Amino acid sequence: TMTAALLEQYRERIRTELDRVVDFWLKYSHDKEHGGFFNCLGKDGKVYDELKYVWLQGRQVWMYSRLYRTVERFHRPEILDAAKSGAAFLQKFARVQASSGAGKCAFCLTRDGRAVKVQRTIFSECFYVMAMDELSRITQDKEMQADAESMMDRLIFWVQTDSSDLSRPQLPGDPPVNSMAVPMMLLCLVDQLTEGRTDVAEKYKDLSGWCVERILQHIQRDGKAILENVTLTGKELPGCQGRLQNPGHALEAGWFLLQYALKKEDVQLQKTAVDKFMEIPFHTGWDKQHGGLFYFLDVDGHCPTQLEWNMKLWWPHCEALIAYLMAYSHSRAPLLLDRFKLIYDYTFSHFSDEEHGEWFGYLSRQGEVVLDFKGGPFKGFFHVPRCLYMCEKLLDGLLERQDS
Amino acid sequence: TMTAALLEQYRERIRTELDRVVDFWLKYSHDKEHGGFFNCLGKDGKVYDELKYVWLQGRQVWMYSRLYRTVERFHRPEILDAAKSGAAFLQKFARVQASSGAGKCAFCLTRDGRAVKVQRTIFSECFYVMAMDELSRITQDKEMQADAESMMDRLIFWVQTDSSDLSRPQLPGDPPVNSMAVPMMLLCLVDQLTEGRTDVAEKYKDLSGWCVERILQHIQRDGKAILENVTLTGKELPGCQGRLQNPGHALEAGWFLLQYALKKEDVQLQKTAVDKFMEIPFHTGWDKQHGGLFYFLDVDGHCPTQLEWNMKLWWPHCEALIAYLMAYSHSRAPLLLDRFKLIYDYTFSHFSDEEHGEWFGYLSRQGEVVLDFKGGPFKGFFHVPRCLYMCEKLLDGLLERQDS
Repeated sequence: TMTAALLEQYRERIRTELDRVVDFWLKYSHDKEHGGFFNCLGKDGKVYDELKYVWLQGRQVWMYSRLYRTVERFHRPEILDAAKSGAAFLQKFARVQASSGAGKCAFCLTRDGRAVKVQRTIFSECFYVMAMDELSRITQDKEMQADAESMMDRLIFWVQTDSSDLSRPQLPGDPPVNSMAVPMMLLCLVDQLTEGRTDVAEKYKDLSGWCVERILQHIQRDGKAILENVTLTGKELPGCQGRLQNPGHALEAGWFLLQYALKKEDVQLQKTAVDKFMEIPFHTGWDKQHGGLFYFLDVDGHCPTQLEWNMKLWWPHCEALIAYLMAYSHSRAPLLLDRFKLIYDYTFSHFSDEEHGEWFGYLSRQGEVVLDFKGGPFKGFFHVPRCLYMCEKLLDGLLERQDS
Repeated sequence: TMTAALLEQYRERIRTELDRVVDFWLKYSHDKEHGGFFNCLGKDGKVYDELKYVWLQGRQVWMYSRLYRTVERFHRPEILDAAKSGAAFLQKFARVQASSGAGKCAFCLTRDGRAVKVQRTIFSECFYVMAMDELSRITQDKEMQADAESMMDRLIFWVQTDSSDLSRPQLPGDPPVNSMAVPMMLLCLVDQLTEGRTDVAEKYKDLSGWCVERILQHIQRDGKAILENVTLTGKELPGCQGRLQNPGHALEAGWFLLQYALKKEDVQLQKTAVDKFMEIPFHTGWDKQHGGLFYFLDVDGHCPTQLEWNMKLWWPHCEALIAYLMAYSHSRAPLLLDRFKLIYDYTFSHFSDEEHGEWFGYLSRQGEVVLDFKGGPFKGFFHVPRCLYMCEKLLDGLLERQDS
């Protein structure tokens, strides 16, 4: 059929692209002297800064391990060795030794592992958990798995019980907020930790329910908007913070939710994931004039105060591709494939670098490359390969069913 | 002469523009219920967020007071009353009540004065000092003046002796840095506090010498570059942080230095201020293709990691106008007036809003308005009116001398 031919064409391009992306990071990012990975790579792969960002170190370990474990052509010793090197670097250096913030992981390290910056959030720890859990599934390293689980328990404690280790000052004008990132990230971690483990799934059953509930609280304005920050009771917050929309983040939450709902066979939640967390951010976030997804928007149409609000970033497009292909894969509704097509065409024609491989990360509203590096403080070996990997798997599934 | 006619034309436009800008903030920014000022004003002056940013509250008090004290047409009760309202709001609410960070001022407050965010820097306190000192010069309020001086002494202690009140964790990979903003800001405060007071000038004599020395450490690469961050001994730092250039900041430092050097009759320092802190950032920072000053650049030509690096912001242009007009005013070198002209033409044709008054703050590299608000978390009643006020004064001086 025509659809099958199109899907085959997508799969071919996505496979090739994934191979190129993996090659890029294997070639340029490994620090053979100190272990771990260089994150700051120029457009041609050259290191322009030696700092090592803990989010990105953890994500790279996870991605290498996942590819090694689940994709035959990436089951190569050099990929496993790289993952091990990154994990060893993290286990040795990520935890902050300072008196304050006991148990916290740094946000950023020097090349040789000294802490440069600590964030008052949970995300360094989250990517540490992802890394250690995924690698330990290959090596069967029980200590590493226990390390992941104890870090997970600590961060659940910070989120649900007592956040004082995070050193965020309690200020009277700044009540706690339900920010989309936290329940999303925890739901992602539960999915990671519970794969193939019914006992662990049982342990985190309440937590995943809690995450879903917290994510659904972001549906606001009579079901017509997804807002990035709400109160802990699911009410709209005042001002810019309350009106903020982050379409890429909503779309990412969308496929996390859909994945969860498919596993649970929760038809209502599947529908919510698509209708609310995909269609709303797509309609809100797609730039009808120049194409691509805006980074930030204000639900009342005010100008966001983030200077980069109208830029087109690579990762919202990656998340949108996964979201719509997953949704299509499940329902086969042609509309969802149309969305995928539109986003695919924009993404592959604007972000992918034909010349040096890998993707640019930051475009102007008009679609020109504004920052030309391939790796930076927030762009590593993660969103691009995860998107390509997930899409390839989804296309494999679609084409297999098509054949049969 | 032709030059006099041109200067007269500039003065006319600048006076009109200053009147419009003052009117805009008088009309839209005053919070008659809680005191202080709304900072977040849309393009038409409408409040889009009620948060009150302490930097901007302090700056607005300072600017109103300075205009009231030194410009006859602004010697109006409503301007003094507004300054007093802002100062009262700050004295009542700016200091953080939390157990940690004793003596710190908040960065951001709710409309009714509850702390929302505290930065681990000295700048809220700096603008507090500027505000209280300037207003107390009008009211002869000795307590307010003492409040300014004691806050000044505290922040000197933080910078020169012990920064632990700032709650910045000491991390092994993050040694203390000489960041341009700190000595610049302190030099500006010394200028503020010592005007017309020989005893105070004597007290801060060593401090101003220290500031100048710290600012001059930013001249790097054999005198060919001004770098934003250097080591405490004036060496270049590794990586992106070390290679960062902020042309607007260098130009602002330039006129702070020139003003100081003129007062000291230090001819060598006057030359350094112009040659190093104006000409270098102008040549580095001016966009030959689209005009305007870039926000950030990397001295080795790498792409900066700041997403907004190629945007054209209002304040570097304001600082450049003051810098070149001050330099021209002193030396009468035609080249310096040419620079002023170029920057003036770009600035007035791109930032000023004919329709609603005041200036846009954030343009794309190509010069289109990207964020259309007039006031935001970092844009208040400060850089625009200070620039217009300083330029008007400088033009008054130039035209007076021309006449005689």
